Amino acid sequence: MAPKNKDDASAERSADALGRAVAERLHGREGTAKAWDLKLEDAGAGWARCSMTLRADMLNGHGTAHGGMIFALADTAFAWACNSRNETTVAQHASISFLSPGKPGERLTAEAREDAAEGRTGVYMVRVAGEDGRDVAIFHGLSRTIGGPVIDEENDHG
Amino acid sequence: MAPKNKDDASAERSADALGRAVAERLHGREGTAKAWDLKLEDAGAGWARCSMTLRADMLNGHGTAHGGMIFALADTAFAWACNSRNETTVAQHASISFLSPGKPGERLTAEAREDAAEGRTGVYMVRVAGEDGRDVAIFHGLSRTIGGPVIDEENDHG
Amino acid sequence: MAPKNKDDASAERSADALGRAVAERLHGREGTAKAWDLKLEDAGAGWARCSMTLRADMLNGHGTAHGGMIFALADTAFAWACNSRNETTVAQHASISFLSPGKPGERLTAEAREDAAEGRTGVYMVRVAGEDGRDVAIFHGLSRTIGGPVIDEENDHG
Amino acid sequence: MAPKNKDDASAERSADALGRAVAERLHGREGTAKAWDLKLEDAGAGWARCSMTLRADMLNGHGTAHGGMIFALADTAFAWACNSRNETTVAQHASISFLSPGKPGERLTAEAREDAAEGRTGVYMVRVAGEDGRDVAIFHGLSRTIGGPVIDEENDHG
Repeated sequence: MAPKNKDDASAERSADALGRAVAERLHGREGTAKAWDLKLEDAGAGWARCSMTLRADMLNGHGTAHGGMIFALADTAFAWACNSRNETTVAQHASISFLSPGKPGERLTAEAREDAAEGRTGVYMVRVAGEDGRDVAIFHGLSRTIGGPVIDEENDHG
Repeated sequence: MAPKNKDDASAERSADALGRAVAERLHGREGTAKAWDLKLEDAGAGWARCSMTLRADMLNGHGTAHGGMIFALADTAFAWACNSRNETTVAQHASISFLSPGKPGERLTAEAREDAAEGRTGVYMVRVAGEDGRDVAIFHGLSRTIGGPVIDEENDHG
Repeated sequence: MAPKNKDDASAERSADALGRAVAERLHGREGTAKAWDLKLEDAGAGWARCSMTLRADMLNGHGTAHGGMIFALADTAFAWACNSRNETTVAQHASISFLSPGKPGERLTAEAREDAAEGRTGVYMVRVAGEDGRDVAIFHGLSRTIGGPVIDEENDHG
Repeated sequence: MAPKNKDDASAERSADALGRAVAERLHGREGTAKAWDLKLEDAGAGWARCSMTLRADMLNGHGTAHGGMIFALADTAFAWACNSRNETTVAQHASISFLSPGKPGERLTAEAREDAAEGRTGVYMVRVAGEDGRDVAIFHGLSRTIGGPVIDEENDHG
């Protein structure tokens, strides 16, 4: 990539700061974030990362991570990433491939990134990794921007 | 469909009883079932139905059902349905289309049915409905049978 | 289902006739229909069925049906079904599970049906079957209605 | 990424040469490649790129690229990429999000890359772009390695 000039770098920092502020606000509002003790690792323009430790109340009948909890972690990173430009955006469709079981007590990390955007539609990929770096699941999300701000930019971040 | 004779009807009852017994066993083992206060409504050969009331700790940052919780409910019905022949089966891939938000306090019901099976692969559809019968989400699951019984048929159901 | 009265039955026939007329019009316009020698079997309100014989120029490097051709057949049935109410509707997302290879010279049949509709969004399932009735693939489509008629109802069907 | 030493660079060239040889072989065998006048642009270990010009016999009833043809182009790049290590691999499941119509006469390019691999399962992403670089579709493929070589390594490439 060509070297960025000072203005580009500044605009990028600002867009990332806005994405981070949106993620913090959504995280603070989510009833699930507290229920799952979910941590916002970091976020920026078009991307977000969060993590969660697999407790006994997150396991399925085989004693490994419930697919619903793996999806839920990935879906949270997706929601933050697709709202990161501060335009209210909803999930229309999502899919997940389960590659490796999540183990009891293991910390899972989900990282979302934007793969494409065209008009009001966005396509995101979320990688869910185990503590040893193996791929636990790959999630793909299709978003639709419905508009209206998520946060008040004047007051919500500086 | 041709009318069933007595033996067919009896075999079907027996297959449904096995499916129900497997679902009860999985439900009993799942850490998530207790965490979500999830109810097994009914289950049989290739199908299952469960329900859950949307609590505050299941809501997203917009105050509606977190997509992860809608998926988790559907995924549970899918898991019971695809294990219902008492051969251990895992989810490989799943997708969900979100059609209508789930409301705080609303009871959601998920019903899974088998759409196709070929070799070790199964294709399932799960409809998630709200209290008023509207479609909240449609989930599709792709399963792979890895074998080995889920329950001991001699002792686990009669 | 409760028995239908005469008016309901008449409305249903009329909706099916409209769906059939839309499918015929789309079929006539599609460059692909001629290229693939694709046959419109039947269509109605929310459903459609078409078929195609697997020629040598539709095979992949393993000598079986190219996944793209199986998808294309299913996608055609989906397009007819989701446009069957004569409101222009486009595919947003689609997925396919490949269950069994399609054989050279075999005739494949795809049948689409609507599984759910909510606002402008529709969810469709298409079963692709081989000559022996086995499932070759299951396709799921997500549609979005953008509006405007497909055909002129006054003149296009009676 | 850490700088590569000479042996790593050499191994990578060799893996890419094998991937390219597999793609060439599959391309040569595909009935569809000739039918669609599909060009192998380039390929290597875990990735592949191909292109195709949208002819009249590839258009749908709205006069734009048939979704089946966009899928078929992406599916071809996916097949080459997932077979690139010369172990026979098949598609189990694939999905596609349609972002922008393909125009009559336009050349579309599909580029596949591996996003994850775990055991016999692979997850691939294919971007389909128009001549102006816009995203026409994003395709995701789930592959399963069934084993056995695609080509004879001794004789098929140098």
